[in-house]
Amino acid sequence: MKTIEELIEGYRRFRGGVYAEQAALYRELGEGQSPSIMLIACADSRAEPSDIFAAAPGQLFVVRNVANLVPPYMPDGKLHGVSSALEYAVNVLKVKHIVVMGHGGCGGVQASLAGGDNPLIGEFVTPWVSLLDEARDRVLESGSINPQFSLELEGIETSLKNLLSFPFVEKAVSAGELELHGAWFAIKHGELHWRNASTGRFEVVDR
Amino acid sequence: MKTIEELIEGYRRFRGGVYAEQAALYRELGEGQSPSIMLIACADSRAEPSDIFAAAPGQLFVVRNVANLVPPYMPDGKLHGVSSALEYAVNVLKVKHIVVMGHGGCGGVQASLAGGDNPLIGEFVTPWVSLLDEARDRVLESGSINPQFSLELEGIETSLKNLLSFPFVEKAVSAGELELHGAWFAIKHGELHWRNASTGRFEVVDR
Amino acid sequence: MKTIEELIEGYRRFRGGVYAEQAALYRELGEGQSPSIMLIACADSRAEPSDIFAAAPGQLFVVRNVANLVPPYMPDGKLHGVSSALEYAVNVLKVKHIVVMGHGGCGGVQASLAGGDNPLIGEFVTPWVSLLDEARDRVLESGSINPQFSLELEGIETSLKNLLSFPFVEKAVSAGELELHGAWFAIKHGELHWRNASTGRFEVVDR
Amino acid sequence: MKTIEELIEGYRRFRGGVYAEQAALYRELGEGQSPSIMLIACADSRAEPSDIFAAAPGQLFVVRNVANLVPPYMPDGKLHGVSSALEYAVNVLKVKHIVVMGHGGCGGVQASLAGGDNPLIGEFVTPWVSLLDEARDRVLESGSINPQFSLELEGIETSLKNLLSFPFVEKAVSAGELELHGAWFAIKHGELHWRNASTGRFEVVDR
Repeated sequence: MKTIEELIEGYRRFRGGVYAEQAALYRELGEGQSPSIMLIACADSRAEPSDIFAAAPGQLFVVRNVANLVPPYMPDGKLHGVSSALEYAVNVLKVKHIVVMGHGGCGGVQASLAGGDNPLIGEFVTPWVSLLDEARDRVLESGSINPQFSLELEGIETSLKNLLSFPFVEKAVSAGELELHGAWFAIKHGELHWRNASTGRFEVVDR
Repeated sequence: MKTIEELIEGYRRFRGGVYAEQAALYRELGEGQSPSIMLIACADSRAEPSDIFAAAPGQLFVVRNVANLVPPYMPDGKLHGVSSALEYAVNVLKVKHIVVMGHGGCGGVQASLAGGDNPLIGEFVTPWVSLLDEARDRVLESGSINPQFSLELEGIETSLKNLLSFPFVEKAVSAGELELHGAWFAIKHGELHWRNASTGRFEVVDR
Repeated sequence: MKTIEELIEGYRRFRGGVYAEQAALYRELGEGQSPSIMLIACADSRAEPSDIFAAAPGQLFVVRNVANLVPPYMPDGKLHGVSSALEYAVNVLKVKHIVVMGHGGCGGVQASLAGGDNPLIGEFVTPWVSLLDEARDRVLESGSINPQFSLELEGIETSLKNLLSFPFVEKAVSAGELELHGAWFAIKHGELHWRNASTGRFEVVDR
Repeated sequence: MKTIEELIEGYRRFRGGVYAEQAALYRELGEGQSPSIMLIACADSRAEPSDIFAAAPGQLFVVRNVANLVPPYMPDGKLHGVSSALEYAVNVLKVKHIVVMGHGGCGGVQASLAGGDNPLIGEFVTPWVSLLDEARDRVLESGSINPQFSLELEGIETSLKNLLSFPFVEKAVSAGELELHGAWFAIKHGELHWRNASTGRFEVVDR
């Protein structure tokens, strides 16, 4: 799928195939959405949440950005894309779960570890992945044998912590109405690791 | 798919089904991604780009936020999620196409038209959808019979215009190395409308 | 409804049903008609204006021909069916609105795109749809992804333009006594799209 | 129904009412039309064929013009709206029946009897209803006690005769594949009169 013609061809396959089986579902979804799960994932082309969870239309409210990052609460009236989606998901859709999903070979994590030495991405990616600065320092200080992998996981911790800095998230979690989760996907082996909330450890999901 | 158990069950279906067929592809993608197409879509659970285009892993670099918005170029060293993804896609991945895809029944567009009167989303969504202010005014002045639909399309125009405000996007477009596209998905009928770049009109894609 | 017996049966249903409720209205209409709206629609059996607008008897003055076409003003004393109806509607009935309504899957538009290669309709349809020639060329040059759909809309533009070539139409429009409108009906989804006069874009009518 | 707002309201009633019951039929009709009956009727707002025959979408291919006239066969490569519809109906749709339906109080017939003395309709209606000249002369010579009514019927005879001047109509009729019919609708009493093909007399349809 390199050209727009191929993209459109993809849509035609969808129409003739998957859509044909789901036409009634789409018709019903035309009335509104009520997903229970919000997914915060990376923009990376290889870690597609709806594929990985075999989700049907209407099931996942999905935010995707570089390195699946959630910035901390910053109510300054300015433009905050992730925060907007979060506010909508928690306050309007009233989702029950938020999953932050990282993945192997993340370019944003790589940029964080490279420390801003790539001028091609110096204007926006470098400031954006500064959200990982503390996590990166922790990883480097820990003497990790695989800083890329460790920061992919540590960055998820950062996003989970930042999620709790939003008063409406904290309140819903405290009230038992919302749960926060972490996950990491190994592209090479198609393997999902799920964060154990009580140990903080990521565990390979058995099949 | 309401619970985390069901989400994990979805992953197991993926492992046993789609993944089993694509294991070799994932193994190869473990080495790196090289998508040609960037998709900027809404977080809405009902308009999943990889479904709609029947895309395989590795084919679409996907940003998703409320109302598929692209803010204008603002190089102030602060956090800019969409701009980061854009910079990465154009300067590192060197994608050939960027598609802004809207959809029917968009909650962000609804919020723009409601003019900020919903306190539940007043902290972040209201400022975020202020990106649509000019488009909304145009729509309301045009006497549109369906402002929701019209603003869904007009918002895509805004995002396309904002994309061109990024010097590296403008340069790639001028050099003929990058094309910008608009699309809109009718959830109820599963119907894709594609923006004709020369007329600006959205055309139903024939099947 | 395949036979004349069934057609007559239909009339008997009308007499016993709808007519019984509207007898007083028909009695009154026996005195004369004074519709405010003229509809120019296609002869296609699937896009019936009075159904689509739930119109009562006496409300719509309706012209129907292949592809809802209006030829340009040609005062040569010869036979001009659409022009006659137009003259009667504007000068005698003094309608306030003229709506040109196209629809999906239009056979006349198809014939225009096919370029006259069907001998079955070469004697009359081919010359008739030559009214669409300019619009067809515009559509093909625009690189439309769906020329059939685009020409259905573009043909409406042609008819609207041709309407204005009639001096008595132009005069009434200039005087603010007459308005011209465009509409398009999606048979498959029973969906009406209404032309926004200020933007030229067709908007799905919300229900 | 005087304004566009009311027209659109009518569409919304259709969507919520009749359409809701016929959605499956419309969906199927989206694939194509195959009506067996062509109706040639007047543009008059009070004689709506689909109402009078309680026809469902897809059942009637309908041409409407001033005074339900069919011009004679004139293969000169120029614009012929009725002939085009006829060619399409007979050669492509292969309809089995063509019904020419007149009605009471026809303005076109009135114009024919007035002999062209109304300048408001002198440019197009006067030449158009010259198709009725021979019939009008017959009526006037017959000393008819009600020339308006008589010419409404006589004009149907003219259209039926002209239909047979088209070689493809004549051929289909001779082959027994097509039948031509006449009908007349009394608006005031909602009464259908059906032409007896062997006597040429119009008979009130019993209910």
